[in-house]
Amino acid sequence: GDQAAGQAVARRQDTLTKPRGSLGRLEELVAWLARWQGREVPSLDRVKVIVFAGSHGVTAQGVSAYPSEVTAQMVANFAAGGAAINQLARVAGAELEVISLDVERPTADFTLAPAMSEPEFLAAVARGYETVEDGLDLLCLGEMGIGNTTAAAAIAAALFGGIDQWIGRGTGVDDAGLGRKAAAIEVAVKLHGEVLHDPLRAAAAVGGRELAAMLGATLAARHKGVPVLIDGFVCTAAVAPLGKLHAHGLDHAIAAHVSAEAGHGRLLSAMNLKPLLDLGMRLGEGTGACLAVNMLRSALACHIGMASFADAGVSEKAE
Amino acid sequence: GDQAAGQAVARRQDTLTKPRGSLGRLEELVAWLARWQGREVPSLDRVKVIVFAGSHGVTAQGVSAYPSEVTAQMVANFAAGGAAINQLARVAGAELEVISLDVERPTADFTLAPAMSEPEFLAAVARGYETVEDGLDLLCLGEMGIGNTTAAAAIAAALFGGIDQWIGRGTGVDDAGLGRKAAAIEVAVKLHGEVLHDPLRAAAAVGGRELAAMLGATLAARHKGVPVLIDGFVCTAAVAPLGKLHAHGLDHAIAAHVSAEAGHGRLLSAMNLKPLLDLGMRLGEGTGACLAVNMLRSALACHIGMASFADAGVSEKAE
Repeated sequence: GDQAAGQAVARRQDTLTKPRGSLGRLEELVAWLARWQGREVPSLDRVKVIVFAGSHGVTAQGVSAYPSEVTAQMVANFAAGGAAINQLARVAGAELEVISLDVERPTADFTLAPAMSEPEFLAAVARGYETVEDGLDLLCLGEMGIGNTTAAAAIAAALFGGIDQWIGRGTGVDDAGLGRKAAAIEVAVKLHGEVLHDPLRAAAAVGGRELAAMLGATLAARHKGVPVLIDGFVCTAAVAPLGKLHAHGLDHAIAAHVSAEAGHGRLLSAMNLKPLLDLGMRLGEGTGACLAVNMLRSALACHIGMASFADAGVSEKAE
Repeated sequence: GDQAAGQAVARRQDTLTKPRGSLGRLEELVAWLARWQGREVPSLDRVKVIVFAGSHGVTAQGVSAYPSEVTAQMVANFAAGGAAINQLARVAGAELEVISLDVERPTADFTLAPAMSEPEFLAAVARGYETVEDGLDLLCLGEMGIGNTTAAAAIAAALFGGIDQWIGRGTGVDDAGLGRKAAAIEVAVKLHGEVLHDPLRAAAAVGGRELAAMLGATLAARHKGVPVLIDGFVCTAAVAPLGKLHAHGLDHAIAAHVSAEAGHGRLLSAMNLKPLLDLGMRLGEGTGACLAVNMLRSALACHIGMASFADAGVSEKAE
């Protein structure tokens, strides 16, 4: 990142008519935007939400509360403007793009075989990479994929160890389904044990196409100077390999929220990410990321629009 | 509130294309708006932020990091559009009104005498009451007043006991100032001890005009069907007497955020209020309340704009 740009923001913040630091995380957010956009006055003119959709062979193990055809049905709902993310993107002033990654062709059931071969995985990463255009000011990541909290939990297990701590109800699976989810991940961890030490090979073996695409998009955003808002549990797990591969690999990304999905708070802690919002959401689609856009717009408006003590003739703190 | 309107919202939420409850607090917020606006489809067309400003005699005790003339200077800054709240109100699509309550005439130093006489207190409450017009859809409360975290801490001490737990740095007072703040409140609690069992008389004895006005505005909002967003520590203490007088006296109000001011989290807990946001802010002016408006707009947009499972042809959860 551009440290000088971030420091310029911090210097200006200290001249504005408020006690120093009193806008809390709003001040940090502007410095972060400046650092990763590489300019002293950041912009939020072009904000984009990309929702990646994929289908999961592991749904054959009965891990989800919803039938797997819902993934394609929701892609149609996105196109028709009827999903939560359509409304939230509009309120946030963000463009919305939906990328369907072979939704009609599920990944392999990773209790039996790797979810994706290496070429399949890399194709999905590349597809995500390509979706990030030049000139974006902010990227919000989202996903849709019945079964994908199971894939996310498997990636978390591979990268950070343990199994049960990553298992949650996803779209609302019952206790029996929760047991099947844990069992599926146990089987997968044994089956793919040899490759799980490698974050990218783990993501191929037990992840999913939409997760791989989010990883690719996050990489592209880093190269193109686009700050990223991470959404919920699935999104966080999808980009986790980048943090594992490099200690600063996710510095250009902020966790927009902590969801109600059981493992999300733990995963964020394991990755040293501090979420902006905690509203008990668990919908995915980029809904949490999109909500946080409003925070960023508010933070930036203060930074750009506020008067300084000198300009406004306001007395400074007595030293 | 209108329970039927709230229930109608909950019923509609359960038909929308998302797992039930997966929008978390966003779903509750819409039901809360419906209940207090008294209509099944709430509106956020007219959102207003009112910032009440007042001056405090207790500043003579050296309790603040800033000189007391900053209060009037900031009122001028609000009028000129240079403060944080000006920017945040614009982003939130809210009207902003600033009410100066005799800023040139401080309350009495409450370490020596009651801050306000009964008529003075009631005049400030009435002033606040009158500012709430008919037809508002949401009211955000804000305040400005050098010295007013000392008044707020004194009210909290009067209503909930203890002293030190309510003492914080406000605009950034140093350790010596923090000691003077605690000492002032100790003196005040002894001096006014006889009346502190009565929440309104306590608010007159150790509060401030802008705090009294926020209490009046919150009362008016209840009578006029206007939901209220409470801002930070000062605002929360200002309306606390209403919660003390009646267990449901603040049901039409939501805590927009928990601030970085030391006593705020404790005060919210004591009042059973669960804040929406936690961003380390401590600026007042209604800045936290205004930020939360974006959450409400997002919540309402989902409620109104989303397709149902039936309309979108999305399969429901397997039972």
